[in-house]
Amino acid sequence: MPSNVVSFDEHKNQQADTSAIAAMQQLVAADMAAVNETILKRMDSPVVLIPELAGHLVNSGGKRLRPMLTLASALLVGYEDDKHIGLATAVEFIHTATLLHDDVVDKSELRRGKKPANLIWGNQATVLVGDFLFSRAFELMVESDSLRVLKILSGTSAIIAEGEVLQLTIANDLTTGEDKYLEVITAKTAVLFAAACEVAGVVAGDSQEVSSALDAYGRYLGIAFQLVDDALDYSSKRATMGKDVGDDFREGKITLPVILAYRRGTEEEREFWKRTMQRLKQEDGDLDRAINLLKSHDTLTDTIERARHYGAMAKDALAIFKDSDAKKAMMGIVDFCISRSY
Amino acid sequence: MPSNVVSFDEHKNQQADTSAIAAMQQLVAADMAAVNETILKRMDSPVVLIPELAGHLVNSGGKRLRPMLTLASALLVGYEDDKHIGLATAVEFIHTATLLHDDVVDKSELRRGKKPANLIWGNQATVLVGDFLFSRAFELMVESDSLRVLKILSGTSAIIAEGEVLQLTIANDLTTGEDKYLEVITAKTAVLFAAACEVAGVVAGDSQEVSSALDAYGRYLGIAFQLVDDALDYSSKRATMGKDVGDDFREGKITLPVILAYRRGTEEEREFWKRTMQRLKQEDGDLDRAINLLKSHDTLTDTIERARHYGAMAKDALAIFKDSDAKKAMMGIVDFCISRSY
Repeated sequence: MPSNVVSFDEHKNQQADTSAIAAMQQLVAADMAAVNETILKRMDSPVVLIPELAGHLVNSGGKRLRPMLTLASALLVGYEDDKHIGLATAVEFIHTATLLHDDVVDKSELRRGKKPANLIWGNQATVLVGDFLFSRAFELMVESDSLRVLKILSGTSAIIAEGEVLQLTIANDLTTGEDKYLEVITAKTAVLFAAACEVAGVVAGDSQEVSSALDAYGRYLGIAFQLVDDALDYSSKRATMGKDVGDDFREGKITLPVILAYRRGTEEEREFWKRTMQRLKQEDGDLDRAINLLKSHDTLTDTIERARHYGAMAKDALAIFKDSDAKKAMMGIVDFCISRSY
Repeated sequence: MPSNVVSFDEHKNQQADTSAIAAMQQLVAADMAAVNETILKRMDSPVVLIPELAGHLVNSGGKRLRPMLTLASALLVGYEDDKHIGLATAVEFIHTATLLHDDVVDKSELRRGKKPANLIWGNQATVLVGDFLFSRAFELMVESDSLRVLKILSGTSAIIAEGEVLQLTIANDLTTGEDKYLEVITAKTAVLFAAACEVAGVVAGDSQEVSSALDAYGRYLGIAFQLVDDALDYSSKRATMGKDVGDDFREGKITLPVILAYRRGTEEEREFWKRTMQRLKQEDGDLDRAINLLKSHDTLTDTIERARHYGAMAKDALAIFKDSDAKKAMMGIVDFCISRSY
């Protein structure tokens, strides 16, 4: 780990964040147990490679943030039936399928501290098991018997795939603007957060106002989440997550901290970014230099500031709901996502 | 091309086959034009790589056999609305997405005489554009407003993915039984043929008897189609399709002709199959020897005989329908699939 990794501690209250995620986990504990059961049941197959490979990722200790949002949203709107369980599972499967296909995509060495699936099972199996989970997600959605839910989630999947291709198209392009970057993270991350929340309102039969509010909450939270993720890639926090610092740098993945540093930099600095991230000619010490440049131009803290802005919008989207434990937990999760340490 | 490739001409009536596919194409011409228009519209995206890469496959001169089955089935049951157009497009998109993901999967050098997508655009883009088409397929299905259609097609997708993983699991395993082989080709090929036919009956609001008959027709036709495909891989017909003879042999893909030849062979012959297809140690002349072994044990002609059996069942499944141009064309397509030369 480079010696000069940036910490965001000056902005965060570790105590409050941990309690926020704990409160959320407690709130949805019973439903999450049902989701975990459904996950195991629906990723099963007589073709043993499927549960084996899918389980590698599904059991890898993720927080299940996206299904958690579906469950919390269902609580928020007072939904009393059980369709949110299948939908939360579908949302997690879409996410997992995307991660599996990303394993083929970006050759990252570590994902949640484990070897990516493609290095163990090969690209072929990784792609196909992703397809299987994706199909199982659609089966689960269809079981909701709600065409509106199906419209939302099938549209979401198309936008995610489109966003992933867009990201590939602008890979290694340092002239990418902040607007294009926002377009990518909205498509590849935020729309699934939005759908995860909105579908709970839809199965509950709530008004357009309610489902729009849930959609907006999820969308802004998702943007904030990805902004923080992209800053964390250059931060010491990363090491405690079992991920390497500097994955994005090594791949030449252009994220907001670099976009801002490139714009704010001198000609000589821009030449450094072009060599390392565009032509991918990297040497020892380059990651240290990159982090120093991000620090000197305040682009990591500014990225977190941008996340705060979207976090505030996410919270305001919940204003139409009356106070409840669910609302409190969903507000807390925004703070958690912005200042998360794991 | 090896000098001794097998021809199936003794069994076929070239005249009849060509006229069968021509009759079908003429029958569905107007609807197919609408499908082609929908394909172009729905594979479009502001992310230009998507239509570029998807178009490579979509425009590569395939016969559009699967959507053709949806359109013909709609005619057969006298369906008068236009939902079959979107469903036929969805079926073709699922098929195309599968082909794209297969490009990652089996590294075949030629697909319909063109370079596979992954050699031009890389694995990453190929996987993601496949995901995009798959998602668009689901959007199109949702627009049918039929939960039964959605159940059929989402279940079909899961079975296809499961079948592809199963195929991977038994790759290079010469002890694979004919039953396991049938399970694979049913999952990866026949269920999509079945769904392509069945959904037309479902949107038409037909009885369970009708949709079951369409499902059976498509399923048996699909099995026959794949059996012939696997025999063609060792046949001179292959060359006229722009594909190499012996792709399956080089990959060590275990198909029925080889399963039968391995079982019927001497110890020395089995050792040959183990070296070439299990350990993939291949030398000049091995493909010639393989084809000679398939010929000497009659396994190519026997594979075609198996296809004839399923073809007969496909035709009998249509017995409940009264005579019509559509029925005639669907009967003809069975003969075409068994004795096709392109």
